[in-house]
Amino acid sequence: MSNPLPVRILLGPGPSNVHPRVLRALGMPLIGHLDPEFIALMQDTTKLLREVFQTSNPLTFPISATGSAGMEACFVNLLEPGETAIIGVNGVFGTRMADVAERCGARVVKVEAPWGRVIDPSDIRRALREHPRAKVVAVVHAETSTGAWQPLDEIGQLVHEAGALFVVDAVTSLGGCPVLVDTWHIDACYSGTQKCLSAPPGLSPLTFGPRAVAALRARKTKVQSWYLDLTMIERYWINEERVYHHTAPISMNYALLEALRLVHEEGLEQRWRRHERHHHALRAGLAAIGIELSAQEGHQLWTLNSVHIPEGVDDGAVRRALLDELGIEIGGGLGPLRGKTWRIGLMGESSAEANVLLLLSALERLLPRFGHAVSAGAGVAAAARQLATM
Amino acid sequence: MSNPLPVRILLGPGPSNVHPRVLRALGMPLIGHLDPEFIALMQDTTKLLREVFQTSNPLTFPISATGSAGMEACFVNLLEPGETAIIGVNGVFGTRMADVAERCGARVVKVEAPWGRVIDPSDIRRALREHPRAKVVAVVHAETSTGAWQPLDEIGQLVHEAGALFVVDAVTSLGGCPVLVDTWHIDACYSGTQKCLSAPPGLSPLTFGPRAVAALRARKTKVQSWYLDLTMIERYWINEERVYHHTAPISMNYALLEALRLVHEEGLEQRWRRHERHHHALRAGLAAIGIELSAQEGHQLWTLNSVHIPEGVDDGAVRRALLDELGIEIGGGLGPLRGKTWRIGLMGESSAEANVLLLLSALERLLPRFGHAVSAGAGVAAAARQLATM
Repeated sequence: MSNPLPVRILLGPGPSNVHPRVLRALGMPLIGHLDPEFIALMQDTTKLLREVFQTSNPLTFPISATGSAGMEACFVNLLEPGETAIIGVNGVFGTRMADVAERCGARVVKVEAPWGRVIDPSDIRRALREHPRAKVVAVVHAETSTGAWQPLDEIGQLVHEAGALFVVDAVTSLGGCPVLVDTWHIDACYSGTQKCLSAPPGLSPLTFGPRAVAALRARKTKVQSWYLDLTMIERYWINEERVYHHTAPISMNYALLEALRLVHEEGLEQRWRRHERHHHALRAGLAAIGIELSAQEGHQLWTLNSVHIPEGVDDGAVRRALLDELGIEIGGGLGPLRGKTWRIGLMGESSAEANVLLLLSALERLLPRFGHAVSAGAGVAAAARQLATM
Repeated sequence: MSNPLPVRILLGPGPSNVHPRVLRALGMPLIGHLDPEFIALMQDTTKLLREVFQTSNPLTFPISATGSAGMEACFVNLLEPGETAIIGVNGVFGTRMADVAERCGARVVKVEAPWGRVIDPSDIRRALREHPRAKVVAVVHAETSTGAWQPLDEIGQLVHEAGALFVVDAVTSLGGCPVLVDTWHIDACYSGTQKCLSAPPGLSPLTFGPRAVAALRARKTKVQSWYLDLTMIERYWINEERVYHHTAPISMNYALLEALRLVHEEGLEQRWRRHERHHHALRAGLAAIGIELSAQEGHQLWTLNSVHIPEGVDDGAVRRALLDELGIEIGGGLGPLRGKTWRIGLMGESSAEANVLLLLSALERLLPRFGHAVSAGAGVAAAARQLATM
């Protein structure tokens, strides 16, 4: 490992760049996990997390591990062996949810869509008719592997009419576009810190609504994961009693709170608009240099732009050149999209006009070397025109 | 929460104080989890972790969550439903191991000892005779809840003669006293970062030996935790392929590597001697002011000193006064020891001569106010005499 570390502009699928105030909070000396000052920090954190989740759920706090542990926390707490979960699968993270639910001993019913497309609510409706006793319906709001943006309100209503619990993966959406937990009838939702919240990876914000809490209370079996058992964790994170469960990651919680303060200071709606604006600028610029988004038209995320790699261009060579020559990270495709797509994140601090212009000019400079002709300045000019309209 | 945060001297059961070099590493800007520079950091980390674990096990890396997740990782990977685990229970963490193993569907055989005493190897021998097909035998090396120090070499031999796997909790010992994974026939061992390694809490160093890896390969069922499934994580952390599993906690890994470098620079043996020396100084000083260690004689940890609260002294009031007036954190007792013991950690950076003298003089100043007569200066003088002999 180099000393000092290189400085990167993080435009991949996460982590995103972190504000200096968050880095400063991260590097503060430690206090104990039962210190009254840390408990005050926990209270501030849960309050601000409810704001970003747009919920009044008391059981809202960060799981002490990354986003995938937040996913696992939802399923291990809500599912018992033999119960049925209907899961939308249209990318890596839907596939992962199905795997996690199966490991809970659940019967998993997959509702599939091609990668890059969204799940059709009528397919969820059909699955609920065929499996009327399904306990959980889970979908991914923002598929980080494909850039697809799943509408949730209609599915939320269907799920509640059927009496099931609605679980949503908001890892790549929370803080970057609307995630309306209460309005959309979401019963359990998790996210990560390293995407649109722009804190380092290591925690997974999670919220459980009253119906999810009731299901938790009605369990017949112990939660299979001790570490993720919300019946114990809530006694530390939420209840006044503050019973020790595990040692909270102190520094990561400093960072998350500071990142949430930045979200609060910017204003959530303002932050959504910022992500929207830079997505449209990037998209216009990319189109001008012959690069098209790969996700379904009308369902393209503001936060994570999945694009087709131009014909004949070497995926790895371009990403390496961006990283080595310019310090810019973008992501490669996952699974069947490997070598076919790039994933360009504009999340949190990384969603900045300067980054849009930089990436476009970097691609304009590099792509001709890799066999993709580009008219110099076309991408940057198109992005600038788009920005002028918004 | 106060702004700025208070500065604390952390002499509780963890977290311990963190060196400024580690805080500086923590606050460095982020790079991606697949960045070649991060992969180089992973390689440096696994190398230094093998050194502190005194092992050549290839499968050695930090789990992306706190120590209790390291515990859970051992059991979910090694146990399948219906298998038998023999578990030493003589405090909170042995009790927790039994709970975690039961949640894996294992049949748990508890080998008990009173809290504060160590597990008798002959009790393990008897349990192994009664349960000859036991797959796992697990004990806690350093019981953070009682201050008891469990000898491991004899139990390790017994376990291997019986063909079982030896699992050890080294959360409060790794880096502060000898943990000889290969010599002691330990098959799986986990720790935390926030104790004697003096990094912040948030990661759990773990090592799996060849017999544990063979058991993992021979599983008939999937590991019940996706997040902790070593068959997948090793493809990211250990194997050349570096397949994405979850987003590694970048900043926490910066901090851990810097903390491991500090251990390496000090020298492991030297570090053990430092912990030994300060333990003996504290112990002599405490005895001089009428405070006795509570763990079994001859089995008292250097790293975590559990002491009897003097008769009539109010537990909470003294700890609050230490924290509020002097910024010193010590820990209270857990479970049946609540209100009866204090837990004084001298771990990692916190194991310093200055902290021994400070805590003794603080207790000399405070205890008379709470009804425990102390001859002024007696504790500090006794500690100084002890230090002069070592």
